[in-house]
Amino acid sequence: MQAVSNPPVAATPIPGIRHATLAGSAQGIRDLSVWSQVLEPGASTPPHRHRCNEVVMCMAGRGEVHLPGKRISFGADSTVCLPRNELHQIVNTGTEPLHLIAVFGQSPVEVFLPDGSTLELPWSS
Amino acid sequence: MQAVSNPPVAATPIPGIRHATLAGSAQGIRDLSVWSQVLEPGASTPPHRHRCNEVVMCMAGRGEVHLPGKRISFGADSTVCLPRNELHQIVNTGTEPLHLIAVFGQSPVEVFLPDGSTLELPWSS
Repeated sequence: MQAVSNPPVAATPIPGIRHATLAGSAQGIRDLSVWSQVLEPGASTPPHRHRCNEVVMCMAGRGEVHLPGKRISFGADSTVCLPRNELHQIVNTGTEPLHLIAVFGQSPVEVFLPDGSTLELPWSS
Repeated sequence: MQAVSNPPVAATPIPGIRHATLAGSAQGIRDLSVWSQVLEPGASTPPHRHRCNEVVMCMAGRGEVHLPGKRISFGADSTVCLPRNELHQIVNTGTEPLHLIAVFGQSPVEVFLPDGSTLELPWSS
């Protein structure tokens, strides 16, 4: 066991999204993953769902979670709980980078697109 | 579902520890808890263990995790993964408040003292 300096959020193939995995299967954990992500202004995740609960903490910036028929807006120092299987998309609606820490009840995290297909993640989780 | 502004870390009966629960059973989640805590310089948690994995992110300050026979020192922007049942104590060894975000694979979080007895938490988790 050791303390590990958080890796810097690094560019990903998803436009405008930088990512770092802070904890998960690489540390031998199967039931928790912790991600740090930065979305540039205007950037968004694809709509997707997980089979696990997700807790999203907004560390800086402003954004929205888009759910079927609903938009939840959030800012720094707020938290959104996303139940398992809830289809969601996170959008940076502000003018500054949106910094999120997302916690999942699963590792590696599985990501499913609206048609049910699996989104292969470009990072280890 | 909604975005909730994080409650301020509030004084607890544990000397030098302020606490806020950001997510957990109050949000209907049983397999994840997220806590924000601030330990004042010199403050420490009691030695304790959980039956779940814990991921501790240091947001600011300097501290140590004391394990049987081992001390792990950490600073801002670092993460420590504590396996289930690992006896641990977190100590602020710095001169500034130590701000931690701790994630658990359980909610409510159960806390056990070294003698196996349950520590009743003074906050809802």
